[in-house]
Amino acid sequence: MSWLAGTTTAHTAENDNLGIDWVLQYEFGELDQPHAISEFRTLMTDLTEAGLRVQVRHGHGQALLVCIRVPRDHLGKMVHQSRIKDWMYAITHTLPDGDHISATAETPAEEIRSVYHAVTWAKELGGAGITPNFGKWKNVTASFPLHDQDACSEMLKQWSRKTVLTIQDLDSIRSLFGEKVAFYFAFIQCYSLALVVPAALGIIGWLYFGPYSILYGSALSVWCICFVEYWKVREFDLSHRWGVRGCGVLKVNRPQYKWEKEIKDPITGQVTHVFPGWKQFMRQLLLIPFASVAAVALGSLIVITFASEVFISEVYSGRFQGFLEFVPTILFSLSLPFITSLLTRIATRLTEYENYRSADLYDLAQTQKSFVMNFITSFLPTILTAYIYVPFGKSIVPHLDIIKRAGLNIEMAHKDFQVDGSRFQQEVIYLSMTAQIFNFCEEIILPFAKKKLYQKWRNYQDRKAGLTRQRSFSKATDLLLLDPPGETSFLQRLRSEADSDRYEVEEDILEMCVQFGYLALFGVAWPLVPLGFLLNNWLEVRGDFFKLTRENQRPPPIRADSIGPCLLGLDFLAWMGTLSTAAIVHLYRGDMSEVHLSSLLLTVFIAEQAYLAIRFTAATAMQKIFAETLSQEEACRHAVRKNFFDMSRNLRNGRSVSPESPGARVRQRVRFHERVNVYESGTDTAVSDGSPSPSNEKVQDDVLKGSDREAAFWNAHSYDTADAGVKLIRALSESDINSVDGKSAKRA
Amino acid sequence: MSWLAGTTTAHTAENDNLGIDWVLQYEFGELDQPHAISEFRTLMTDLTEAGLRVQVRHGHGQALLVCIRVPRDHLGKMVHQSRIKDWMYAITHTLPDGDHISATAETPAEEIRSVYHAVTWAKELGGAGITPNFGKWKNVTASFPLHDQDACSEMLKQWSRKTVLTIQDLDSIRSLFGEKVAFYFAFIQCYSLALVVPAALGIIGWLYFGPYSILYGSALSVWCICFVEYWKVREFDLSHRWGVRGCGVLKVNRPQYKWEKEIKDPITGQVTHVFPGWKQFMRQLLLIPFASVAAVALGSLIVITFASEVFISEVYSGRFQGFLEFVPTILFSLSLPFITSLLTRIATRLTEYENYRSADLYDLAQTQKSFVMNFITSFLPTILTAYIYVPFGKSIVPHLDIIKRAGLNIEMAHKDFQVDGSRFQQEVIYLSMTAQIFNFCEEIILPFAKKKLYQKWRNYQDRKAGLTRQRSFSKATDLLLLDPPGETSFLQRLRSEADSDRYEVEEDILEMCVQFGYLALFGVAWPLVPLGFLLNNWLEVRGDFFKLTRENQRPPPIRADSIGPCLLGLDFLAWMGTLSTAAIVHLYRGDMSEVHLSSLLLTVFIAEQAYLAIRFTAATAMQKIFAETLSQEEACRHAVRKNFFDMSRNLRNGRSVSPESPGARVRQRVRFHERVNVYESGTDTAVSDGSPSPSNEKVQDDVLKGSDREAAFWNAHSYDTADAGVKLIRALSESDINSVDGKSAKRA
Repeated sequence: MSWLAGTTTAHTAENDNLGIDWVLQYEFGELDQPHAISEFRTLMTDLTEAGLRVQVRHGHGQALLVCIRVPRDHLGKMVHQSRIKDWMYAITHTLPDGDHISATAETPAEEIRSVYHAVTWAKELGGAGITPNFGKWKNVTASFPLHDQDACSEMLKQWSRKTVLTIQDLDSIRSLFGEKVAFYFAFIQCYSLALVVPAALGIIGWLYFGPYSILYGSALSVWCICFVEYWKVREFDLSHRWGVRGCGVLKVNRPQYKWEKEIKDPITGQVTHVFPGWKQFMRQLLLIPFASVAAVALGSLIVITFASEVFISEVYSGRFQGFLEFVPTILFSLSLPFITSLLTRIATRLTEYENYRSADLYDLAQTQKSFVMNFITSFLPTILTAYIYVPFGKSIVPHLDIIKRAGLNIEMAHKDFQVDGSRFQQEVIYLSMTAQIFNFCEEIILPFAKKKLYQKWRNYQDRKAGLTRQRSFSKATDLLLLDPPGETSFLQRLRSEADSDRYEVEEDILEMCVQFGYLALFGVAWPLVPLGFLLNNWLEVRGDFFKLTRENQRPPPIRADSIGPCLLGLDFLAWMGTLSTAAIVHLYRGDMSEVHLSSLLLTVFIAEQAYLAIRFTAATAMQKIFAETLSQEEACRHAVRKNFFDMSRNLRNGRSVSPESPGARVRQRVRFHERVNVYESGTDTAVSDGSPSPSNEKVQDDVLKGSDREAAFWNAHSYDTADAGVKLIRALSESDINSVDGKSAKRA
Repeated sequence: MSWLAGTTTAHTAENDNLGIDWVLQYEFGELDQPHAISEFRTLMTDLTEAGLRVQVRHGHGQALLVCIRVPRDHLGKMVHQSRIKDWMYAITHTLPDGDHISATAETPAEEIRSVYHAVTWAKELGGAGITPNFGKWKNVTASFPLHDQDACSEMLKQWSRKTVLTIQDLDSIRSLFGEKVAFYFAFIQCYSLALVVPAALGIIGWLYFGPYSILYGSALSVWCICFVEYWKVREFDLSHRWGVRGCGVLKVNRPQYKWEKEIKDPITGQVTHVFPGWKQFMRQLLLIPFASVAAVALGSLIVITFASEVFISEVYSGRFQGFLEFVPTILFSLSLPFITSLLTRIATRLTEYENYRSADLYDLAQTQKSFVMNFITSFLPTILTAYIYVPFGKSIVPHLDIIKRAGLNIEMAHKDFQVDGSRFQQEVIYLSMTAQIFNFCEEIILPFAKKKLYQKWRNYQDRKAGLTRQRSFSKATDLLLLDPPGETSFLQRLRSEADSDRYEVEEDILEMCVQFGYLALFGVAWPLVPLGFLLNNWLEVRGDFFKLTRENQRPPPIRADSIGPCLLGLDFLAWMGTLSTAAIVHLYRGDMSEVHLSSLLLTVFIAEQAYLAIRFTAATAMQKIFAETLSQEEACRHAVRKNFFDMSRNLRNGRSVSPESPGARVRQRVRFHERVNVYESGTDTAVSDGSPSPSNEKVQDDVLKGSDREAAFWNAHSYDTADAGVKLIRALSESDINSVDGKSAKRA
């Protein structure tokens, strides 16, 4: 796997982020010049008024890149305030050190989260209020922190050498990308490790029992149920480890949120904006018609494709049969994105209408809906094969010759139609092997190649545009348009990151859920399915990390205390899987023609009762056995109150104490910069190489001692940065008339 | 209903408890005199060493009644300490007033709970360590606080005038009897109110649809599911209102608890005794074989009874048929208590083996097991009728004539056997009407009458024994054996309470669960079932309160935050009910002979999916709609931390503040004594009539200003109380040889 990591371990100078905390991309291709200039000036004012330092560079085409740096003392204050809030809302239990009004972030993620808040939070909350792609700022098309190239390469290198991710690896992901992303990797790690059990059982099953074995089927179902219950416990455990339990309450309101009344809490005096729960629930009930519409739309598409494919391949025997066979699949592939995007639009409007308070809740509801769509598109074809085509094919397929009955004269196969009984198993094998590899290529390798090619083409375009431009502007503007020699490669990376896609962790989680679904629903048909998935996941976890670090923008390090709505999906799939496994085993074990409906129903009914019983037992057992975290959490809460009580008693007795003398934990900063190995705590190396120690850094922020290159970057354009930006806008939008429009080329 | 309340509203003097906080009954009938004396002396020493005041009177037969009073300053300290503990473990969120080291109880229940702790807690925890009926103190046969006669009468009077219990009534129960009892009354109130819906639907269903209607059946099932989900929310709500959320952690270890290791918490420094969760879970799995054994034992008994009853009434037609018909039922009634008590013994040993930490958890596990037994005995007969006798009776019953085939010559009915199709409905009608009334009589009226008669006989015995005794003792002992004239009626009440049974709230909860089960499982057979239950519950709630206050000992005011394991039982019954309702409707709606197994299975299968969907929706909806309490709870927790933070900041800034300036709630004592109306807050009347105000009371405790009678009681036997007790033991055990043995008479 070293090829993954090996691509960019060149010189660290290029990997230095020059102290940039955050980058905004402002595109003005669709605006007229004066409008663009005034909007840009507002952007600059908003940012500087929020106390942020800015620097402007031109992006690809008609775009500016606004580099943002939060002065260290401001950042320290924000981190401290955020910690106090965490403590107040009982998310953490160690009172932040009371002697400072500022704190050093424990992890890069914590730091960047505060930067993220500084940029995106509303002005009332102390932010700059820049909400990309929305409302006033719909021309701010990207908003992201820069990747920490060195740390990422280091981690990729480490991962390629080991088989199993450790909890330290997960901690590292958390420190770089925040808890939401870390939860995905924790899930895939936990899931892959758990897969070892059914994979081993599967090998035994494959060797001794063959497919559709009752024993293997039951074991698989029990494993599915237990795994889901175990993950719930594990998730709780991790959320405690990372100190994010219940962090949902802290999330700020979405700008789109419409509340009905303001309520002032009588105890805390805080004002909350309330939208009645019952109203929201009523609106949420619209999920049911949505699911029905999605089921009908996608379902009928799948059924038609399936039927015509069967018709062409097994009934029709006329000309071009070999070619025609592929037509339905191609038509399906072409129309699926259309229908899916239509449904997604409906889903988005629904979620919008449901009016969620925080972005988290909104994402949750949106993921729920895409889970429904994904469920239908992923599982319906195989369900059709398993429960309709194979059992009833013999009586249904002959009726497909409607075309003949319609009077058209087309050659039909004259042989008796025979259902291909192994088709279901073949599909399962395809799903667990070929489809996974295809998927991997489609998800990671293809976009990577595409991005590389596109970048090459882009650079070529820019060079050409640069040549055209150079002739027509003043010298000062020329200097702006040309990258300073020391920054060239860095700016290239910056532009490339600005052009990258956002990393959607929900999609990756959903992918794993779907995989779990295949296993739970159809795994019994071929005992080697878990083995295939296990191997795939080894690659998948590294591929996803590669995609995250090399292909996508660094996501804002958002906190979460769970993998979200997919948890409910897992529950659902485990339930469905039990029923499905029972039905498949019953149908396919013996001669299918001898199966009675009542005995099948009885089997499924009994399986459902078994599911309920096992789930209840597993949940109880897990809670009993892994009760430790819960009691730890309790102990922490108890300690807070004990401190409070001791303090108030001492206060009464006239003694003075420091508030958190017992139980106070010294926070150790986890550093990821070039000076520190990712996998070491970094206490000894932080100061030795002349770089400022955190406490100095705060004071001497304005001087920016980090490095000469950093200083050069931030001190460029000693005149107003806003003016520099305006000049760039003028130059770029005028040059655009002359040169090829990079933007429209990109759009195409 | 005024007859319930009217029995004892005579003169309040008799109702005065003379300042007695707690009573122990020490029986020495089975011990030899020296042993009894030394044991009694130890008891006295233990009590006085724990700082309690004691006074001795003789009880019925060979028993002493030890009256205990906790000095007010000691009690105040205990209440205060208990409150601090509550606050520490985040059960309450208002920091107890820091200026005192002692507090006045908010409710009588809180006061008595502290008394209970003072008597029963181990010596290390500051109690006297008296665990009645166990180990060293197995001769202490009763341990209870005295009833507050006036408050009880007042409440019964009030209740008989109103139709619906209000939340104030529940609060009053809570203040008198503690949360565990209050939760039962809250449950029955909530359940009865909710019953109005199916009762109304039932009347409509009875008038227009008749029995076995699909519409009514579905509505009933939905109601059952929604009610259970609603109760969960309501329970949470009440536990917040009463400040008992999560009080389970505070419960002390049972003396029988065996831990495996001691763990010292690294944060709080507290030592906890741990028994591994997985071990306990493994032991809990023994519930499965226990349930199987119980099912087989009770099941076969029921099946045999059922079969022989059917045989005699419908197949046999020989001599004495009219008499023989009752034989199976009589045999069943005689053998049931035997089997049940055997099973209960097994259950107790199992629960003992499962090794629970606190008495609460132990009770919970025990209730679980009795739920299983109750479920079988209550529901199996009707299930047999509904699903075996009526559908298959025609083919099974004729095979019952094994006797004939065995060669014996007994006259058989020669008519063709016809299944009585309405038998199921008749049984349901019986269950919802007649059985409920019988139950009420058996549970409340019969014991009351028995107790009254037994009391009369007892008093007669005592008087006779007194006459025998008077001749044989010294004058001092005679004075001890004779009740002082002012105390006669009070001591009569005291002895009668000591003889009463303990109040088992779990049994009452279980009874309501069983009722809910009848409704959920068989309610569809006769739409008026909920109406019957509604009327019954109106009486039941008053009857239970009457039983609690007039027939049973006052229970120690134990805290709880739920109705306990019955909640799981309700869930189970709602699930079972949905399946059962679907099956009954399917079977009984049309001609039973036309029902196919596959269609029946399909119906039940669909019903189960509907159950899962509705339950999920209902739970989500309830949580959304009633999210208020949860957020209030959060706000309270938040306020605690905010205060702490403010204080620690002020401390840093050198300012001094009282710890709980904002949000501190002034606790208002709820008084129930003769001076105060139960239904008023009692702020104005507390001091006016010369009774000591709480703060004076503490200081002047030793003088006992309460009343002259009180003073006379506590100052009796100016010499050592222990000596008085020893004299009584001698007198009673010797007189016993001469006189009729009251004790053995009681045993018989």
